[in-house]
Amino acid sequence: MSKSLIFGHQNPDTDAIVAAKAFAYFQTQKGYDVEAVALGEPNMETTYVLNHFDEPAPRVVKTVSNEVDDVMLVDHNEAQQSVSDLDKVQVSFVIDHHRIANFETTSPLYYRAEPVGCTSTILTEMFNEEKMEIPVKLAGLMLSAIISDTLLLQSPTTTDADREAVRMLAEIADIDVQSYGIAMLKAGTNLAAKSDKE
Amino acid sequence: MSKSLIFGHQNPDTDAIVAAKAFAYFQTQKGYDVEAVALGEPNMETTYVLNHFDEPAPRVVKTVSNEVDDVMLVDHNEAQQSVSDLDKVQVSFVIDHHRIANFETTSPLYYRAEPVGCTSTILTEMFNEEKMEIPVKLAGLMLSAIISDTLLLQSPTTTDADREAVRMLAEIADIDVQSYGIAMLKAGTNLAAKSDKE
Ligand SMILES: [Mn+2]
Ligand SMILES: [Mn+2]
Ligand SMILES: [Mn+2]
Ligand SMILES: [Mn+2]
Repeated sequence: MSKSLIFGHQNPDTDAIVAAKAFAYFQTQKGYDVEAVALGEPNMETTYVLNHFDEPAPRVVKTVSNEVDDVMLVDHNEAQQSVSDLDKVQVSFVIDHHRIANFETTSPLYYRAEPVGCTSTILTEMFNEEKMEIPVKLAGLMLSAIISDTLLLQSPTTTDADREAVRMLAEIADIDVQSYGIAMLKAGTNLAAKSDKE
Repeated sequence: MSKSLIFGHQNPDTDAIVAAKAFAYFQTQKGYDVEAVALGEPNMETTYVLNHFDEPAPRVVKTVSNEVDDVMLVDHNEAQQSVSDLDKVQVSFVIDHHRIANFETTSPLYYRAEPVGCTSTILTEMFNEEKMEIPVKLAGLMLSAIISDTLLLQSPTTTDADREAVRMLAEIADIDVQSYGIAMLKAGTNLAAKSDKE
């Protein structure tokens, strides 16, 4: 099996970056040769998250067909949100929580979408189904992605599955969801930096 | 929750008919109000299968938006293989084993595709994951769908998941796969009818 790249959408948010890392960990455990990359630099919120858990930012790629024949998409499926040369590679896996549109393959594939608040929620379910342990640091990252996508479980897209995943990930990562979540969302709006100066 | 219709593709094969029935049973157990229907009459092979298990053919529909707002697709996703007024309803679930093309939704949905030989194989996995018992008659129908799609596990699309599902379903239904499978495939080619006359 040749190597695959895993990535989220352009202008990545925390879920796009973290879901790629989480699915790369999952697929590696399953025996796939994969690397999590990103289609852009982390935003302020994601930078806060990566720093908090001492996790490096993923390598940024502009094209993929120059290095692989196969890719796996997370947190998106629409071609215009994806890598520019998507039509030159095979898509073998998609894990997503958005509507499906402008997505087409020539071969059968593994596609898993659920109408929940965050891709990292679906990935939490996948780890559970496989009885695969989620490492402490990865649990903290996945928790951050769900907090980000659901605005601390307050967005109208929030489901019971998101709430259950947050409960489980917070326990593994030993994190106080409210205080960490507010600090993280503040970092994203740059309110933290501003109020430091005031 | 209002009622949904579940159906496979036009010119239905055994998997299209059986997967709709199997997913309807699954969703009913999960609390959904659903009915398995079909976009055409059963072919000769499927008629043999339904007769063998004393199972009625599903109601045939030409349009769906006149009776429901929501549908669930099995064994297909491409609009041109689906019901003519698909664009007038919401698709809330898709269970399929084909490439994805000409498929688009306006809302997030549950989509499960796997690159295996038959939709009924994916459904067998779903029953297992939920620890939901498969009734004896339904196991026989699902076994028939996998035999049909994989030509008795001989087609190049056959995977280990299909072989494992066949093993499990044959045990539940107490069926000899080889002898039943050959009789069933023969019924589909009308060889059985011909050789009766010869
Ligand atoms: Mn996103
Ligand atoms: Mn997301
Ligand atoms: Mn079919
Ligand atoms: Mn099929």
